[in-house]
Amino acid sequence: MINAKRIEEDLNKLARIGRIDSNNGLTRLAYSKEETKAHDYVKKVLKALSLETKVDSFGNLHGRMEGNGMPIIIGSHLDTVKNGGRYDGSAGIVSGLEVIRCIKESKIKFKHPVELIVFRGEESRRFGKPSLGSRLLTGLISKNDLDRLKDNDTTLRKAIRDCGIHLGSSTLNSAKAYLELHIEQGDILDKKKIQIGIVTGIASSVRYKITVYGRKGHSGTTPMNSRRDAVDGASEMILAREKILMAEHKKGRATVATVGIINVPSGSINVISGKVEFYLDLRDIDIKNRDETEKLILKTFDRIAKKRKLQLKYGLLERTMPVELKRDVQGLIENSCKKLKIKHIFMPSGASHDAIYFSYKGIPTGMIFVPSKNGISHAPEEFTELKDIATGAEVLLETVMQLNQK
Amino acid sequence: MINAKRIEEDLNKLARIGRIDSNNGLTRLAYSKEETKAHDYVKKVLKALSLETKVDSFGNLHGRMEGNGMPIIIGSHLDTVKNGGRYDGSAGIVSGLEVIRCIKESKIKFKHPVELIVFRGEESRRFGKPSLGSRLLTGLISKNDLDRLKDNDTTLRKAIRDCGIHLGSSTLNSAKAYLELHIEQGDILDKKKIQIGIVTGIASSVRYKITVYGRKGHSGTTPMNSRRDAVDGASEMILAREKILMAEHKKGRATVATVGIINVPSGSINVISGKVEFYLDLRDIDIKNRDETEKLILKTFDRIAKKRKLQLKYGLLERTMPVELKRDVQGLIENSCKKLKIKHIFMPSGASHDAIYFSYKGIPTGMIFVPSKNGISHAPEEFTELKDIATGAEVLLETVMQLNQK
Repeated sequence: MINAKRIEEDLNKLARIGRIDSNNGLTRLAYSKEETKAHDYVKKVLKALSLETKVDSFGNLHGRMEGNGMPIIIGSHLDTVKNGGRYDGSAGIVSGLEVIRCIKESKIKFKHPVELIVFRGEESRRFGKPSLGSRLLTGLISKNDLDRLKDNDTTLRKAIRDCGIHLGSSTLNSAKAYLELHIEQGDILDKKKIQIGIVTGIASSVRYKITVYGRKGHSGTTPMNSRRDAVDGASEMILAREKILMAEHKKGRATVATVGIINVPSGSINVISGKVEFYLDLRDIDIKNRDETEKLILKTFDRIAKKRKLQLKYGLLERTMPVELKRDVQGLIENSCKKLKIKHIFMPSGASHDAIYFSYKGIPTGMIFVPSKNGISHAPEEFTELKDIATGAEVLLETVMQLNQK
Repeated sequence: MINAKRIEEDLNKLARIGRIDSNNGLTRLAYSKEETKAHDYVKKVLKALSLETKVDSFGNLHGRMEGNGMPIIIGSHLDTVKNGGRYDGSAGIVSGLEVIRCIKESKIKFKHPVELIVFRGEESRRFGKPSLGSRLLTGLISKNDLDRLKDNDTTLRKAIRDCGIHLGSSTLNSAKAYLELHIEQGDILDKKKIQIGIVTGIASSVRYKITVYGRKGHSGTTPMNSRRDAVDGASEMILAREKILMAEHKKGRATVATVGIINVPSGSINVISGKVEFYLDLRDIDIKNRDETEKLILKTFDRIAKKRKLQLKYGLLERTMPVELKRDVQGLIENSCKKLKIKHIFMPSGASHDAIYFSYKGIPTGMIFVPSKNGISHAPEEFTELKDIATGAEVLLETVMQLNQK
C-alpha cells in the first residue's frame, strides 16, 4: 500500500524550498519565510486529499481526517538548522502524508480522527530553544519566552507575527496517541543494517550560554605571563569538557556535551580578547548522569576561571527532562515490525524531538527511527535511503491501524 | 615652551570623533568616515598654523614647514582598533602639532623642512594588515593587496576611493630623519615610573588565518569517541600555542603569540562544528626566536590535526621583518632627555609602528615611548597622563632641534 514514489515526490519538492545552490544544503529556520513556504506545500497536498486543514495560533499546520473520540496524532517538523539536510523532520511529514493517502485509498472507516501536525521551529538554530511549535501547542513554554527569545533584534513574538499568525492560547490537552517517524541522526541502524529503531526514551538538553571575561590588551606588548586572555580561558574550558565526557564515555555512559558556537565580540587579530561567549549543549537520557556531569563541568570551568583570573557568567538557556516512552506504544510498533517482518531494535534517542512534549502531557507517545547514512545529520550530507523511509511509513501505517482498533 | 593645555585641547577634540557613548571607547577604522573626520580636524589646525597641507594619493595628510634639503618627518596615525582608546596614534599627532606650534612661536629659522605626516590605516582591524598608509607611501606593499585585502566585500582599493582619494604611486624615498612618539602599550615605563622609553628596535608579526575542517554532526546523537569536532581541535591548538609561548617566556624570551579572533561559520548550539577559523599573531624582535617558535607552533598544530583526523589550511596574512633602529637617532633622543633631565630607558617595542617602514627605507628613524597606565591599550581604558605626553613632546621638540643642527 505504501508507495515510495509518492514519498519521493514530496521529499523532492520540499528539498527545493530554502535550498542552498552551492552544496544542496537547506536553510529553513524557525518562523522564516522558507519554513512557511514548506508548510504551504504540505497544506496544498492535504487539501488535495480533501483533509480539513487548520493553522493554529502558533503557526503549526494541522490536517485532520474526521472520526470520533480522541485523535491519533502523527507529528514532525519542516524547519532545518542553517545549512542542514533534506531528511531531518521532513521524513516524518512525508511519511505521515503517505500514511494518510493509504488510509484514504483503503476506504477503511476509521474510528478515531487521524491528525497530521506539522510543527513550527523544532530546531533551536534561530532562537536558541528547540520545539517552539510543539511547546506552544502543549503549553509547555514560559510566556516570557515570547519576548525573551531573540534572533538578533527580532523577538519570537515578532517573528510569529511576521508570519501572519495571531498568537493564541494552548489548546491541545489529550490525544489517543502521538506518533513520530524521524531519521536516527546516529549511525547505529546504518552500521547494524537494521531498518527500524523503536525509541525507548528521549535524551534532553541542559544548555548554557557561557561568557568569559578577561582583560583586553595589545597582542605585541603584553608578556605571556601577564595576560588574562578570554580566548585562552574558553579554549581550556572547552577542552576540559571534552576530557570529562571522554572519561564518561569510557565508563560506558552515553552523556555527550558539545560546544557548537564560539563568539569573540569585537575580536581583532592584534588584541588579546577581553570577552568570549560560547554555548554548551549537554545531554543524556539518564538524568542522574546528566546532572552529575553538569556539576563536574561547571566546577571545572570555575576552577579554570579562578586560576586564570577570569570572570564567568552562566546563562541557563534550557533544562528539559529526559523521558521514557510508553511501553505499550513501543509494543504496538514492535508488533507492526513483526507482522511486516522488518528487522528492528529498541534504542534511546540522543536527539530531542517534538514527541517529548506529548509524552510530558501524559499522551501515549511512540517514535519510529529510520537509518541515517553514516549517522550524519544537520548537514547537507544527511541521507536516508528512500526504501528505508518507505519501510518506516509501513510501520507507521500499521501502528496507526492497530491504535485505531484498540 | 611645550604647552600641555594646547595638547589637551587637541586630544579632547579628537576623542569626540568616532566615540562610543556607552563606554567612551573610540572606533575610527582604516579609511572610514571617522578617520577622515579626524584627519580633517588636524588639517584645520595645520592650516591655522599657516602650514602648507597636502593629502597624498593614499590619503595620508602632510603638513610642512618649509626649509631647505631633506625633511625631518614626525609621523603617527589617527585610526583606532574597534572599541579602542584615545592615545594610541593620537598622542603622536597631538605632540607633533605642539612641536610645530613651538617652533613657529620660537621664530627660529629652521634649516630643514619639518613635516608632520598623519598616516592612514595603521591598525589592521579592518583589512587584516597594519600600516597601510605608511606602506603605500614608502612603496612597501604589494600592489595586489589593493584588491586582495577586504573588509567583507569592500576591497582596500574601493575603501580608499570611497574616501575621495585618487590612488597614485609611492613618492617618499628619503628624509633627514623620521621621528614618532607613541604610547608604550606595555607596562614597563608605568611600573618603573620612568617618563621616556627610547626605542631600540621594533618587533613585527607573522600572521596566519588558520582554518580547521572537521565533520559536522548532531550534538545529541554522535558519541564522544566518534567526533571530529573542529571547535575541540581549534581549542587544543590555541591552548598548545599558549603552552609553547609560556615555556619560551620562562626561558627569558620575549616572543608572544595571540589568538584574537575565532569564528565558527554556521555554528549552531546543537551541531558539532565542521569548520572553525582562527587567527594567529606571532611576534618577536628577535627574528631567530620568532622563526623557531613559528615552526614549533605549526608542527604542533599539524600533530593535533592528525591525531583528531582534522584538516588544516594555513593562510599566511603577513610576515614582516623586525628592525633595529639607528643608534645615532637613539643617541640624539638620549641627549635630549639628559639635557631636559628626564628619566629614560632604552627598550624594544613589542608593537609594530609606522616607523618600521621608514627604517626599512634606510631613513634614520627614532621612536619615543611615553607611559601607558597599567600597560593597557587597544581598549577604552587606555590612559596616558597629560603631563607624560607633554614630557614626550619636549623630548620630541629637543630632538627635532638637534637634528636640524646636524
